[in-house]
Parts: sequence; C-alpha cells; structure tokens
Amino acid sequence: MLTVDVELKDRKYPISIGENLLDKIESFYPLKSGDRVMIVSNPTIAKYHLATVENTLSQLECIVDHVLIPDGEQYKTLDSLNLIFTTLLEKNHNRDTTIIALGGGVVGDIAGYAAASYQRGVRFIQIPTTLLAQVDSSVGGKTAVNHPLGKNMIGAFYQPISVIIDINTLNTLPKREISAGLAEVIKYGAIFDIQFFEWLEDHIDGLVSLESSLLAYCIERCCQLKSMVVAKDEKENGERALLNFGHTFGHAIEAHLGYGNWLHGEAVAVGMLEAAALSHLNGDITEKEVARLELLLARANLPTYSPDGMLSNEYLPYMKRDKKVLGSKLRFILLKSLGSAYIATNVSEDKVIQAISHFVE
Amino acid sequence: MLTVDVELKDRKYPISIGENLLDKIESFYPLKSGDRVMIVSNPTIAKYHLATVENTLSQLECIVDHVLIPDGEQYKTLDSLNLIFTTLLEKNHNRDTTIIALGGGVVGDIAGYAAASYQRGVRFIQIPTTLLAQVDSSVGGKTAVNHPLGKNMIGAFYQPISVIIDINTLNTLPKREISAGLAEVIKYGAIFDIQFFEWLEDHIDGLVSLESSLLAYCIERCCQLKSMVVAKDEKENGERALLNFGHTFGHAIEAHLGYGNWLHGEAVAVGMLEAAALSHLNGDITEKEVARLELLLARANLPTYSPDGMLSNEYLPYMKRDKKVLGSKLRFILLKSLGSAYIATNVSEDKVIQAISHFVE
Ligand SMILES: NC(=O)c1ccc[n+]([C@@H]2O[C@H](COP(=O)([O-])OP(=O)(O)OC[C@H]3O[C@@H](n4cnc5c(N)ncnc54)[C@H](O)[C@@H]3O)[C@@H](O)[C@H]2O)c1
Ligand SMILES: NC(=O)c1ccc[n+]([C@@H]2O[C@H](COP(=O)([O-])OP(=O)(O)OC[C@H]3O[C@@H](n4cnc5c(N)ncnc54)[C@H](O)[C@@H]3O)[C@@H](O)[C@H]2O)c1
Ligand SMILES: [Zn+2]
Ligand SMILES: [Zn+2]
Repeated sequence: MLTVDVELKDRKYPISIGENLLDKIESFYPLKSGDRVMIVSNPTIAKYHLATVENTLSQLECIVDHVLIPDGEQYKTLDSLNLIFTTLLEKNHNRDTTIIALGGGVVGDIAGYAAASYQRGVRFIQIPTTLLAQVDSSVGGKTAVNHPLGKNMIGAFYQPISVIIDINTLNTLPKREISAGLAEVIKYGAIFDIQFFEWLEDHIDGLVSLESSLLAYCIERCCQLKSMVVAKDEKENGERALLNFGHTFGHAIEAHLGYGNWLHGEAVAVGMLEAAALSHLNGDITEKEVARLELLLARANLPTYSPDGMLSNEYLPYMKRDKKVLGSKLRFILLKSLGSAYIATNVSEDKVIQAISHFVE
Repeated sequence: MLTVDVELKDRKYPISIGENLLDKIESFYPLKSGDRVMIVSNPTIAKYHLATVENTLSQLECIVDHVLIPDGEQYKTLDSLNLIFTTLLEKNHNRDTTIIALGGGVVGDIAGYAAASYQRGVRFIQIPTTLLAQVDSSVGGKTAVNHPLGKNMIGAFYQPISVIIDINTLNTLPKREISAGLAEVIKYGAIFDIQFFEWLEDHIDGLVSLESSLLAYCIERCCQLKSMVVAKDEKENGERALLNFGHTFGHAIEAHLGYGNWLHGEAVAVGMLEAAALSHLNGDITEKEVARLELLLARANLPTYSPDGMLSNEYLPYMKRDKKVLGSKLRFILLKSLGSAYIATNVSEDKVIQAISHFVE
C-alpha cells in the first residue's frame, strides 16, 4: 500500500492507495467499534462495491446506514443533498457520525458538502471510485452542488479525515471514464513534472489496461502533485490556477456541446492541445512538444480534435463568460515547456483562434 | 460609538454599537466604492430599515441588490437559502460580493449560511435588528437553516467581517420581542457576571423603555461576554454549554406549546427560573437569589410561570430528547450563585420535577 499525507494548517490526513483496501478493516482507521457511519453512493456504484464496504465496516462493528442518490451530474443538486440530510435525521445520526462518499466526483462533491453542513460539520471519508476522483476531485477539499444557473456554485472547503483509494474499483468503471481520468493525469505531467510525463509516455498502454502497480504509482504521483499545490494555495488564487490548464478551452467545448455529451476529461484533452498550440504561438513550447502531448493523449484513447462542426471562432464567446477570465482580458494557462506552466494574461484573440484552428478537422 | 473586538484564531472583526450607525458610511468599513453587495432581509424589516441601508451604501458608491425572504421561523429553510442563491446568480454576483444580513436571528442565520456556501464562501456583514440578535445570535459564527426533522440541523461555522448594531432599529421592534431579548441579557448576568446582574437590577426599567445609553452599554457587555466564551470554545464542547442555562427547560416549553406560541426568550425566562430552583434544591443558590432572578424577569415583562396546563412531569420526555442531554443521563446548567454557573450531570428526575412544580400555577 502507498500513502500520501496531505498537510493542512492544523492537521494532516492520509490518502491510502492499493489493491483490495475495501476488504480490510485497517483501511477504515480511525473508525472503530460502535461508530455510526452513513455511506453515500449511487445505484450504479452500489451494485458493485457497497456490499464490500458494508461487510468490512460490520466486521469492524460499526453501525452502518447508506443512502443512494440518483446517478448523474444532473442530480448534483440541493435536492440530493437534502435527501442525505433527511436520511441522517430519520436514522438519528448525531454530531459524532461519519459520512463516507463511495463513488466518483459527483458523489464525493455532494457527500463532502453534506458532511460540511450536517449539524455544522461531521467527519468525512472519501472512497473515490473513478480515476478522475482518485487523482483529482478527492484531493483538495472542494465540495459543491450545482445550481440551475451555474455549476458548483454552492459548497464549502471541507477536508476529509482520510481518503481510501482501492484501485480494484476501477475494474468495473467504463473504459471511456478511465480515459477521461487519464486526461487529468497527463495534465499533471504537462504542467508540473517532465519526469512524470516521460514515465507516462513509457507506461500509458499499461495504464489503459489497468495494470495495478502502474496505476498505484500513477495515482500516488498525481495525489502528491495536487496536494502540494493545494497546501500552498488553499483558496485558489495563485498556483492552484495552473490546474486549469486546458480547462478554459475544454469548458467552451462542454458548453458548446451541452454538458454531458463529451466527458469532462475528453474536452480537457482537446483543450490541453489547443492551449499547447497557443503556447507555441506565444513563443514557448516547441512544435515537437505539442506533438508529444498529442500522441500521448491519442494513446490514452482521448480525442485530439475539436468536436464535429465546432469552429475556431465559436470558442471565444464561451471563454469570455468563463470565470477564469478576469475582467475583460483573456487569461490562459500556457506551457513554457513540457512540465512547466505559467499564467499568461494579454493573449490576443487572433492567436487563440489560430491555435484552435490546428485542431478543427 | 462602542466597539467590541472579536478575536478569532487568524483574524479579528469589530462589533460596532451605537445610534444611527446605518446612516453613516463609516459604519460599513471595509466596504468601498465599486463593491457589490447583496442585502438579505424580510418584508417586515425592509419596510422600516432597508431604504436607510441602501441609501448609505449608494453614497459609498457600492452596487447594491437585495433579496427578501418571507418573515418567520418556518421559512428558515433550504428553500429560502436557494432563493438567495438564485438572486445572487441572476444578478451575476461573483466571489468578491458581500452578503449583508439585515434582520433578526432568522435572517442572520440564513444569510450567514448563504455567505458560507455561495461559491464556497463570500464576505458577510451582520446588521442585527432584534435585541436577541444583537446580544446573542450575531456573535459566535453559528449559521443554520432548519430541516423538517430538526431545528438548525444544516449549517456552518462562519464568521462575519463586521457586525453593525444600530440601537435605533429597536424602536420599531414589538415590545414583546424586546422582552424576549432581555431574557438572554439577564441570562448573561446570571451565569457569568454578578456586577452586570446588579446593573440590570438598577436599570431594567430604562432598558424596557429603550433608553439609548443604557441599551448601548447593555449590548456591549453581552457581546463581550459571549465573544469571550466563544473564543475559548469555538466548537461548543465546554464552557459554551453554559450559555444553555434555562434552555433545556425552555425547549421543553417550546416543544410542548408548539414552536412559535411563546417566544424563545419567554420560554427561556421560565426555564431559567426552573433551573435556578433546581440549583437551590441541589444545595447551591439561595432562595433569595432565586427570588431576585424572578423579580428581574417580571420587571422585564417576561412570564414567570409554566404555561397554562403544562404539568411538572410533562417536561421530562422533551428533555430526554433534547440534544443537550448526553446519553441517558440528564445534564443541566445550574447556578453556584448568581453570576456563576456550572454543568451538573447526574441530577435526579425527582428533583427536576420538584423544581418545576414551584412554577406551575
Ligand atoms: N472537488 C473537486 O476538486 C473536483 C475536481 C474535479 C471534478 N469534480 C467534479 O467531479 C464530477 C465528475 O466526477 P467523475 O468524473 O468521477 O464523474 P461521476 O461521479 O459522474 O462518475 C462517472 C460515472 O461512473 C460511474 N461510476 C463511478 N465509479 C464507478 C465504478 N467503480 N464502477 C462503475 N461505475 C462507476 C458513476 O456512477 C457515473 O455514472 C463533476 O461533478 C465535477 O464537478 C470535482
Ligand atoms: N446563530 C446563533 O448563535 C443563534 C443564537 C440564538 C438564536 N438563533 C436563532 O435566531 C432566531 C430567532 O431570532 P429572533 O428572535 O431575532 O427572531 P426573528 O428573526 O424571527 O425576529 C423576530 C420578529 O421581529 C421582526 N423584526 C426584526 N427586526 C425588527 C425591527 N427592527 N423592527 C420590526 N420588526 C423586526 C422579524 O421580522 C420577526 O417577525 C431563531 O431561528 C434561532 O434559532 C441563533
Ligand atoms: Zn478537470
Ligand atoms: Zn436562547
């Protein structure tokens, strides 16, 4: 088992990464006999993994309840949140209870916000079951639900007491979701760590076919990188913004297609390529480096072209509405070289359109 | 103008107390020209005080919106909270906005939770307009909404950047609400500060008739006492529990009558007398001290008898459900003497019934 310690101002907590962790009572430390627990999940995930978690917690003599919210981003709402509160109250959970999120980013974000809010805060454990959740959403303490007028508009910064990453849960995850998660993995290499990027070039095929030891190392490295950034910049003003590499373009794609047609990671893959091309036009990264990024994404079975029919000049209106755009100036995360990102302000709209045009078929 | 500084772990904020503060742009520091503001209030309070606040903020060249939630504890809900979020999003408020609560404890608790949650936290200013809110709910950082299955079950600990107490707002408050606020005022004297209790004995008539300089001193002292306790015990495990003096009995009364028939402060008044009588039976406070408390409450126009038809043995079932009761043991805040409280465990049910019986007509 691998462990990444996340250092907060006043305490730290462990991320445990390994195989079959959900079968072992030790994984659930500091839970102990007599503790009350509410597992939050959805029917898709519960079918595969809920019984395992409930069995292990029963062996530990915890008193376990669960609540299932409907599957899908469209249910990341105040209504789903309230379903969790109602279940907690009906079963008489008090301030000593622990909420466990068993699922992807949607379940994690809602359950985390429920934990932040129930009786003004109860203990929270994350069990992320998608690759995206394991390398991204379960680290950093951001929790939220959506509002009809905006994604992730309602939430809290709230940290878990532990994160349990059982890589076997990925065996039941659709391949397309694995690839979407790999987009965020490749992002870490591209913005922070050329060695890791090269490691990914060497091992991407093994990751796609879910080789355990490769997955474990890969997830460990991503959690280290994200938790380092988050520790330095908890409230997302400076360095944490680099994590948005590819996301301004990606959000434009997601908004253009209607959310849910492409997976987030798929849009981010193309967005990273467009941002890389823009970096090159800006005089930074070489053409060869852009090509290396493109090849790696393709090998991870990710799209490398703008969606059918989406033209270069159709990105800008969405980008200007994006919250990462400060004032009226366009603001982008660009690459100095592979493994090193920076924030560029004052990029001309012409260059942006030109960069995108390379990836329009 | 009087000021009480509330010291938090990583910052401090001021409570300003005085007359006509809402007319002065200085009161709204650190707001400045160009800042966006969302005032949360209800129609009852808005009628009297919203225009004043909006005028002053316009002079300061803030960009001001407001949202009114329906008046009443029954609207302290996730729905009212969502109305605030919808208005913020419709008017394009971003993470730099400031939410101002203009109202009593209901408005303050909901608006504070909205500020804690909107985009994971925006700035928050309290303008409490009931005496209860000025001496109690606006200090300490507790925010919440109710769930149909429990009061204040959903919320956050979230501190304002300033509290503005304009005692002139009390001129429009119904007299019965003033008295209810005085119950909490008297509570501070009884549990923490015999000098203050004696000052109240000397000045209660002036307070009832809203003499400004007396009110200002009284509110200052209460804010000092509450913020001292809160600073020592932010998460409510130890000393902060003393603030619940009279509340276990009071909650039983409120639950028996159905919430909203007696005001909270009225139930707490009778609850404090019953707790004082129990203290005497327990060998602590003298009979004469109980009588002093009774007289002071009566002079503040508060009830001093259990509600019509509520018998001594009808309290216990409610008390056992109350969250201040740990495990199966009854736990009470009692008085060693006037001005000095402690937590008593292991009080016999017989004594509790006997104490209450003194106040059943
Ligand atoms: N909090 C953060 O810092 C952060 C960061 C990035 C993304 N997010 C959020 O994460 C969400 C996206 O997360 P996601 O990509 O994990 O999507 P998701 O949670 O919707 O999961 C994707 C799909 O896979 C299913 N699934 C999950 N685990 C499974 C398993 N082991 N086996 C079979 N099926 C499984 C889910 O039921 C769902 O249908 C978004 O709401 C996004 O806003 C949050
Ligand atoms: N957060 C805390 O620490 C804390 C502490 C104690 C109580 N509370 C909460 O506070 C709430 C009770 O607060 P409250 O007693 O202020 O009740 P409230 O907010 O309901 O106000 C009482 C009534 O007075 C009206 N009103 C308020 N200001 C007025 C003014 N200046 N002029 C005319 N009318 C005015 C209101 O519209 C309402 O009808 C409860 O929900 C309770 O849970 C919170
Ligand atoms: Zn992403
Ligand atoms: Zn009270």
